[in-house]
Amino acid sequence: MKSYAIGIDIGGTKISAGLVDPRGNILVRGRRPTVGTDPAAVLSAVCELVAELGPGGAEAVVGVGAAGWMDPSGSTVAFSPHLAWRDEPLRANLEAALGRDVLLSNDADAAGWAEYRFGAAAGEDNMVCVNLGTGIGGSLVLDGVLQRGRFGMAGEFGHQVMVPGGHRCACGNRGCWEQYASGNALAREGRALLAVHGATSYRLREASGNDPHAITGEMVGSLAVAGDEACIELVVEAGQWLGLGLANLAAVLDPGVMVIGGGLGSASPLLLETAEQAYRGSLSGRGYRPYARVVGAALGPDAGLVGAADLARNALD
Amino acid sequence: MKSYAIGIDIGGTKISAGLVDPRGNILVRGRRPTVGTDPAAVLSAVCELVAELGPGGAEAVVGVGAAGWMDPSGSTVAFSPHLAWRDEPLRANLEAALGRDVLLSNDADAAGWAEYRFGAAAGEDNMVCVNLGTGIGGSLVLDGVLQRGRFGMAGEFGHQVMVPGGHRCACGNRGCWEQYASGNALAREGRALLAVHGATSYRLREASGNDPHAITGEMVGSLAVAGDEACIELVVEAGQWLGLGLANLAAVLDPGVMVIGGGLGSASPLLLETAEQAYRGSLSGRGYRPYARVVGAALGPDAGLVGAADLARNALD
Repeated sequence: MKSYAIGIDIGGTKISAGLVDPRGNILVRGRRPTVGTDPAAVLSAVCELVAELGPGGAEAVVGVGAAGWMDPSGSTVAFSPHLAWRDEPLRANLEAALGRDVLLSNDADAAGWAEYRFGAAAGEDNMVCVNLGTGIGGSLVLDGVLQRGRFGMAGEFGHQVMVPGGHRCACGNRGCWEQYASGNALAREGRALLAVHGATSYRLREASGNDPHAITGEMVGSLAVAGDEACIELVVEAGQWLGLGLANLAAVLDPGVMVIGGGLGSASPLLLETAEQAYRGSLSGRGYRPYARVVGAALGPDAGLVGAADLARNALD
Repeated sequence: MKSYAIGIDIGGTKISAGLVDPRGNILVRGRRPTVGTDPAAVLSAVCELVAELGPGGAEAVVGVGAAGWMDPSGSTVAFSPHLAWRDEPLRANLEAALGRDVLLSNDADAAGWAEYRFGAAAGEDNMVCVNLGTGIGGSLVLDGVLQRGRFGMAGEFGHQVMVPGGHRCACGNRGCWEQYASGNALAREGRALLAVHGATSYRLREASGNDPHAITGEMVGSLAVAGDEACIELVVEAGQWLGLGLANLAAVLDPGVMVIGGGLGSASPLLLETAEQAYRGSLSGRGYRPYARVVGAALGPDAGLVGAADLARNALD
């Protein structure tokens, strides 16, 4: 059954596993909470999940997706934000424990690959996938090839500087795109609105119990969906920044489609509509060239798992 | 002699031709002034140049590089800034006139490809090439493949917006990178310096005959090389913007090397040094990842011709 592959998605709060067929369907699923940050505990959890998937996966190759920087060969985790991995030879450790071939992928790369193979970008060989969550991650497929860059770190779209001297970013720079168009940006602007105690922020005050720290990007997004004018404005502003950054990516890469995924991307049609409008209004050379399509991701939270499995099958089978 | 290829570089002021061997050496050269913007005149000039290259090129495929947007198959010029081409089927016309296979390439793509195959980026499969002239063009090779994008327009690096609401760009946007780090940017800042009639601008006043319109990026660059402090400051400022934009490209693409070419890029070591320093000081994730090398182009003005020939040989032979 070499045509089946196992995908594992190691997230900050849970580990998901699935036996995936060559069309991207998940045949068997498994799941457990992330077991702290200890590498050995994560390793055991992955081995247990693989066993739980049953006899269909007994000989399947394993693809593991996780947040972090993997070396381009898919062997080592150089750095992971949620987990205590630093130059961790995760591939070799897992192969020893599982007795079969393993490939590591960055989680955003895996999710983008799944959208390209089976989702919103199917049939389009030049794709940018933007994952909007608390920050902005991403991946790129050009000429049908997932591009990881020389050191495995391509696709860090959120860290394009778009406002020199602008808001401080966790990466150390100022003015990164993700400070203007992500969940964290919405939360920061929501807190700023609450702080000025205006009449416009009363729903935000209610929802947060008047606690600025309780405000999240999700909360602002939900209030916008519920019709709160102030939060709608915040979402529109974030969408405009999102579109401007998409135009920058198009200037560099000229993709045929730009897929917007991630928790925030999937939750807000208004954000996507605004972004597409802003993209079309700020694409360099507009009027003299075709526009890339801007579309929402199709595979939801399964994308990482499915993509990790498919990448492993392609690389190892 | 199929392993030889002919390269033609159609520029704004001249057309260069060469018979190029598989190692990128130019065996025979030809050249004439660009004959206005009439497509038929350009076609005749190219045919004459091909004939002039002699019997060694009698059966060689022909690669033509020109400024403009070519469709990804290398058949049609969608738009060219210097020439009166609009959806011009240049490839078919040339093939009919020459009786052999022809491939069209964007001139920046051709130059970047030459640097990758035979020049400053040889041996590095993930490359960004930035052409600094009056504006900023560029090209990208990822995984050893020249990436043209879905519609043939990838590599328009100069039109990343880096200062929302900033200086107006010829592309219609405001705040494009090339408004801060190109020859035109140097010229604009030189004019601004002249306009305030300060003591610092006396060399610029001399060199320009006190005519703001006479100031060019080249002039500012030459004065900087000659030691004029004011022009040195302008070059350093442009270099800092250059480095910031390189950091943005690295966030997206994670190349192993970034080649800086073009007239301005080749003329100013100070610009390059400043740019590399600024790049290293603003790369997102610096300290946790390797740096791409920042290097000057190696092939000079021949790059476009050599690259156009090599791309044609690879595609057609």
